[in-house]
Amino acid sequence: MKKVCIVMGSDSDLKVMEGCVNKLDAFGVPYDVRIVSAHRTPAAAEALSKNAAADGYGVIIAAAGKAAHLGGVLAAQTTLPVIGVPIKSSFMDGLDSLLSIVQMPSGIPVATVGVNGAENAAILAVQMLALSEPELASKLDAFKAEMAQKVEAKDAKIRAQFAK
Amino acid sequence: MKKVCIVMGSDSDLKVMEGCVNKLDAFGVPYDVRIVSAHRTPAAAEALSKNAAADGYGVIIAAAGKAAHLGGVLAAQTTLPVIGVPIKSSFMDGLDSLLSIVQMPSGIPVATVGVNGAENAAILAVQMLALSEPELASKLDAFKAEMAQKVEAKDAKIRAQFAK
Amino acid sequence: MKKVCIVMGSDSDLKVMEGCVNKLDAFGVPYDVRIVSAHRTPAAAEALSKNAAADGYGVIIAAAGKAAHLGGVLAAQTTLPVIGVPIKSSFMDGLDSLLSIVQMPSGIPVATVGVNGAENAAILAVQMLALSEPELASKLDAFKAEMAQKVEAKDAKIRAQFAK
Amino acid sequence: MKKVCIVMGSDSDLKVMEGCVNKLDAFGVPYDVRIVSAHRTPAAAEALSKNAAADGYGVIIAAAGKAAHLGGVLAAQTTLPVIGVPIKSSFMDGLDSLLSIVQMPSGIPVATVGVNGAENAAILAVQMLALSEPELASKLDAFKAEMAQKVEAKDAKIRAQFAK
Amino acid sequence: MKKVCIVMGSDSDLKVMEGCVNKLDAFGVPYDVRIVSAHRTPAAAEALSKNAAADGYGVIIAAAGKAAHLGGVLAAQTTLPVIGVPIKSSFMDGLDSLLSIVQMPSGIPVATVGVNGAENAAILAVQMLALSEPELASKLDAFKAEMAQKVEAKDAKIRAQFAK
Amino acid sequence: MKKVCIVMGSDSDLKVMEGCVNKLDAFGVPYDVRIVSAHRTPAAAEALSKNAAADGYGVIIAAAGKAAHLGGVLAAQTTLPVIGVPIKSSFMDGLDSLLSIVQMPSGIPVATVGVNGAENAAILAVQMLALSEPELASKLDAFKAEMAQKVEAKDAKIRAQFAK
Amino acid sequence: MKKVCIVMGSDSDLKVMEGCVNKLDAFGVPYDVRIVSAHRTPAAAEALSKNAAADGYGVIIAAAGKAAHLGGVLAAQTTLPVIGVPIKSSFMDGLDSLLSIVQMPSGIPVATVGVNGAENAAILAVQMLALSEPELASKLDAFKAEMAQKVEAKDAKIRAQFAK
Amino acid sequence: MKKVCIVMGSDSDLKVMEGCVNKLDAFGVPYDVRIVSAHRTPAAAEALSKNAAADGYGVIIAAAGKAAHLGGVLAAQTTLPVIGVPIKSSFMDGLDSLLSIVQMPSGIPVATVGVNGAENAAILAVQMLALSEPELASKLDAFKAEMAQKVEAKDAKIRAQFAK
Repeated sequence: MKKVCIVMGSDSDLKVMEGCVNKLDAFGVPYDVRIVSAHRTPAAAEALSKNAAADGYGVIIAAAGKAAHLGGVLAAQTTLPVIGVPIKSSFMDGLDSLLSIVQMPSGIPVATVGVNGAENAAILAVQMLALSEPELASKLDAFKAEMAQKVEAKDAKIRAQFAK
Repeated sequence: MKKVCIVMGSDSDLKVMEGCVNKLDAFGVPYDVRIVSAHRTPAAAEALSKNAAADGYGVIIAAAGKAAHLGGVLAAQTTLPVIGVPIKSSFMDGLDSLLSIVQMPSGIPVATVGVNGAENAAILAVQMLALSEPELASKLDAFKAEMAQKVEAKDAKIRAQFAK
Repeated sequence: MKKVCIVMGSDSDLKVMEGCVNKLDAFGVPYDVRIVSAHRTPAAAEALSKNAAADGYGVIIAAAGKAAHLGGVLAAQTTLPVIGVPIKSSFMDGLDSLLSIVQMPSGIPVATVGVNGAENAAILAVQMLALSEPELASKLDAFKAEMAQKVEAKDAKIRAQFAK
Repeated sequence: MKKVCIVMGSDSDLKVMEGCVNKLDAFGVPYDVRIVSAHRTPAAAEALSKNAAADGYGVIIAAAGKAAHLGGVLAAQTTLPVIGVPIKSSFMDGLDSLLSIVQMPSGIPVATVGVNGAENAAILAVQMLALSEPELASKLDAFKAEMAQKVEAKDAKIRAQFAK
Repeated sequence: MKKVCIVMGSDSDLKVMEGCVNKLDAFGVPYDVRIVSAHRTPAAAEALSKNAAADGYGVIIAAAGKAAHLGGVLAAQTTLPVIGVPIKSSFMDGLDSLLSIVQMPSGIPVATVGVNGAENAAILAVQMLALSEPELASKLDAFKAEMAQKVEAKDAKIRAQFAK
Repeated sequence: MKKVCIVMGSDSDLKVMEGCVNKLDAFGVPYDVRIVSAHRTPAAAEALSKNAAADGYGVIIAAAGKAAHLGGVLAAQTTLPVIGVPIKSSFMDGLDSLLSIVQMPSGIPVATVGVNGAENAAILAVQMLALSEPELASKLDAFKAEMAQKVEAKDAKIRAQFAK
Repeated sequence: MKKVCIVMGSDSDLKVMEGCVNKLDAFGVPYDVRIVSAHRTPAAAEALSKNAAADGYGVIIAAAGKAAHLGGVLAAQTTLPVIGVPIKSSFMDGLDSLLSIVQMPSGIPVATVGVNGAENAAILAVQMLALSEPELASKLDAFKAEMAQKVEAKDAKIRAQFAK
Repeated sequence: MKKVCIVMGSDSDLKVMEGCVNKLDAFGVPYDVRIVSAHRTPAAAEALSKNAAADGYGVIIAAAGKAAHLGGVLAAQTTLPVIGVPIKSSFMDGLDSLLSIVQMPSGIPVATVGVNGAENAAILAVQMLALSEPELASKLDAFKAEMAQKVEAKDAKIRAQFAK
C-alpha cells in the first residue's frame, strides 16, 4: 500500500517534482503519482482527496503553479496532512504560487515548502511518516549525517584550496 | 429569477460586498447572496456552481481573501462568467488575494476586479447582462453620464475655489 | 458582424495575443484585430470605443503592457464589458501591467485576466457572449469536457509510469 | 508526555500563538510552551531540538518574526517535523518572516503555514499526530464537520436576509 | 494667464495636493486647479490637454491614484511637460499608482515624483518654468538656501542637545 | 552651447542611454555626455551640478542603477530640472533603481521616467526646453504625429491581416 | 574624543534613533549627533565625511528614509565604515529606504541593518570599535549574556505558566 | 594569523564570493575560506563562531542564499562583527536572501551589503580592520583614489566621443 500521493496540477510540473520522486525512492517510501487539476478535473480532485485516507495514504503532496489552488482543494476534503509545493511560475518567480498555497484560511492548513521545493516536500512527508515508523526516523538520521559529511568534505577541500 | 449570485467566502466579507449589493439594487438587477467556502463547504460550492446556469443565474460574483480559491473553484464547475473580487487581507493589502484570483491557469478564467472592488464587480456583471438586456445598457449609459456630471460639478466647484 | 474586438497597444503584443485569436477561432466567434494606442492614437481609441456597441461588438479585449492604460481608456467610453490582458513587461514580469489594468477606480471596471492570459481572455469573452447564444454555452461545455479528458489521459499515463 | 513543543522567539509572539495553544487544547493534545531565541539563546535552541525526539515530542511548532531563523535552526538539529509560523512583523506585513521560514534549502524542510497562522499550525500538528492516533483523526473529522456547519448556518442566514 | 494646471482625478486628492498649491503660491506662480477623470470625464481630459498650450499653460501636474491613467491620458494629447503625482492608495501604499504613472511607453513621458510628492511636483514645475523666467530661478536659489538654513539650525540644536 | 547634460553613473549604462542620445540628435538638441559617479567621483558630481546653469545647460539627465543616488546628488546642487532614468539592475528589474530615484524627499525633486526609459528622458528634456523654444514645440508636434501615423499604419495592416 | 558620529537626515528620525543613542550610552561609547541632509545640506555632508577620520570618529551611523542617499553620500568621502539605518517610510514600510541604502555599487559599501534597526546600528558600531578596545569586547560579552538571561527567564516563566 | 573568515553556506556561492577573495588579496589581508551550513553542519557553525575571536579573526563574512540564516547563526555566538552577503537566489533575485539577513532582531546585528555584494563585503571588512591598522586605511585611500581615476578616465573618453 502506498504511503504518499504526489499530485501535480500539470504534467509540466514533473521536471520539478522528479526531485520529490527520487527522494521518496531513496527513503524507500512507496508512492503514487497523479495529475489532477483543481480547475480542470475537480471531480477527480474530490475523489482522490475524499478517499485518500481509506486508500491508505498517509500524506498528500500537491504541486501547482500560478493561482495554485490544488493543495487547498485537496486539504478541503481530507484530514490527512497536505504538503504544498509552489511551482515557479513565469510571474515573479512563483510569488503567485507561494501566496496561493501558504496563505490558507484558518481551519485548513497546507504545509508549504519553498518554491520548487520538491525534495523538501519528500523529506517532510518522510518526517511525518517517521512518527509511527521508527525505521524511517533512522533513515532520516542517516540522511542528516550524510548531508553533514558532504558539507564537511567540501569545507575541508576549500580550506585547503585557500590555505597559504 | 435571480440574475446574479454573489458568493462570499466569509461573512466578514459582507462589509466590503455591500457596495456590490447596493449597486445591483441601483440597477434593479435581482441577486442572491451566499456564504460558501471553497475549503470549509466544498460540497456547497460544487452544488452552487454546477447548478448555477440551470438555476437561472447569468453571472457569479465570488469574493474572497488570502489564498482566495473561491472564484477558481466555482469557475471550475460552470461555464458562466465568474467575477472575482479580491478582498483586502492583512497581508500586503490583499496581494495574496489578488494573485490567487487573477493568475488562473489557461482554460478557466476568473474576471478579476481590483482589491475590494465590490462596486466594479456589480457594474461588470450588469455590463455582461446588458449584452442581452437593452434596458440595462440604457441604465449603464445613464450611470456613466451621472458619474461624469458629478465629476464636472466638483470640477466647477474647485475651479471657482482656486480662481483668483 | 464581428462579436469581439481585440485591441492591442502594440504589434509586439501579437505573439502573446495569438492565443486569444486562435481560441476565438476555435469557438467560431468572429472578431476584429486592432492596434490602437491609448497614448499614441488616443483619437482612434476614443472612436473605437464610442462606436463599439453601434458597430455590433459585444465585448472588447484590450491587451497592453507597462503603464497599461488601454483597457481603462476604452472602458471610459463604452458600457460594453472590457477584458484586460496584462502583457508581461520587462519589469517584474508585468506587475506594472497587472496593477495598471486591474486597479481601476469605482465605476469603470476592466475584467482582468492573468499576465499574458490571452486564451483566458478569449474564453471569458465567449462566456459573456454565451449568455445570449446557447450554442456557445454548448461549445463551452464541450471545451470543459475536452480539457478534463486531456488531464485524465495524462493522469492515467503518469499513474502507469510510476506504478511498480 | 507532551506531544507538541510550541517554541516562540519572543514572548511578544504569545498573543498570536494563543490561537495555537487554544486549538491544541480543543483537540486535547498535550504540549509545552517555550521561549527560545535562535540568536539570543542558541544553546537552548540546540538542546531543545537535539532532545526533542527523546523527550517524546512528535512535532515542533516554531513561531518567529523578521529574519525568522528559529524554525530552520530547530530543524537543523532534529528529524521531527518542524512547523513554522511566520509572525507578522512591522515590515511588509511579515514578508520577511515568511520568506525566512519557507525558503529553506534542500534537505531541511520547515512546514510553513500562513502569516500569523497559529491555529493552522496546531491543526497541522494534529494532522501529523493523527497518522498514528486514530482518535485524533476522528476529532479532525468532527472539527471539519463543525466548520462546515458554521458556514452553512451563516449561509442560510444571509440567504434569508437578502431574499426578497 | 496661469502657468500651471493642477489636475486631480478626484476631489479626495486635494488634501494631498494642497502641498502643491501652497508651494506654487509661495513661488508666486499662478495656477488653475481642476478635477478631471481619465475614466469618468474623458472628454474633459481631452479638451483640457489639447487646449493646454493655447490656454497658456506651461506645465501640467496630474495627481491620481490606483490605476492612475490621468497623467498618461493628458500627456497623450499635449507636448507640454506633464508631471505625475502618484497618490497613495489603499493598496501597497500606492505601488499601483506609482507604476501606472512612471512606466509610460516610449514616446509619451510623464515626469514622475514620489508617492504623494505634491510639493516636489510644484517645485519641479517651477524649475521648468524657471528656464525662461530668471526671477523664478532666483526664488529657487533662495528656497534652496532656506532649506539648508533650516537643516543647519536643527543640526546646531541637536549637536548642542547631545554634547556632553 | 549645449542644452542638455546627460550624466551616467557608469559606462555600462551607455547601451541603454544611446536611446536618449539618439532621440536628442533627432530633435537637434545639443548635449554633452558625462560619466560621473555620486560615490566614486563625488567632487566631479558636485562641480558638474553647481556649474550646470552657468555652463548653459537647461536640463540634466541622470541615469544610474541599484542604489541610484546620482540624480538626487545632482539635484542637491542645482535648481535646474533633473530627469532621473532608473537603469535596470540585476535585482528585481531595477526596483531598487526606481525607488532610489523617485522617492526623493520634499524640496529636491527628480523627474523620474520608467526603468530604462532613456528615450522618454530625452523627450521630456525637449518638452522642458520647448517652453522657451517654439521650434522645439513644433518638432514635438511632428514627432507626436509621426508616432500616431506609425501606429495607424500597423493598425491598418493588422486589420487587413485578420479580416475574413 | 567622540568615537561615533550619528547622522540623521531629518530631526523626525530622532524618535527611532534614540534607540541607537541609548545603546551607545549603555556601552559608554561617546558620540555626536548630527542632522545633515544629503540633499539639503550637501556641503555639510561632505565636510562631515571628509573630516570624520581626522576628527577622531571611528564609525559613522547614517539614518535616513525614502530615497535614502545619506549613507552612500557619506561613504563616498571617507574610508571609515559607514553603518546605514533604513528609516521606515510611509511607502511599503521602508522598502525604498532599505534598497536605497543596501544596494550600493561595488567599491563603496554601507553596512546596512534592518529597517528602524537603531539599536543594532549601535551594537554593530561597538563591535567594530571593540576590535581595538578589549574592554568593549568584554561589555559585548556581558550584553550577550544578559540578553540570554532575559530570554531564559521568560522561558522559565512561560513553561511554568503552561505546565499542567 | 588570518584576519577575516569568509564563510559560505554552499560551494556554489564561491563563484560570487571570488570577488571577495580577490579584493582581500588586493588589500593584502589574510583570510580563511570555509563552507559551513547553518542547517546541515550547525555544530561546525557553532564551533567556528564561538572560537572566532580566540582564533584571531577580526571579522566574519557570511554568504548565503534563500532563507539565509548563516550570518545570523554565526552572529549569535560571537561578538565579532559579522558581514552578511545575500546571494542571489532563483526567487525574486534574492529578496529572500536579503530579508533573511538584514532583518535581524535587536541585539544581534548582521552588517548587510547588497545582493551578491562580495567585493563590498571585503572592503567593509578592510574598513573595520583599518580602525586599528593605519596601513590599511592608507590602502583604502589609495583604492578610493584609483576608483575615482578610472571613472575620470571613462568620463574624459566619453566626453570626447560625444563632443561635436
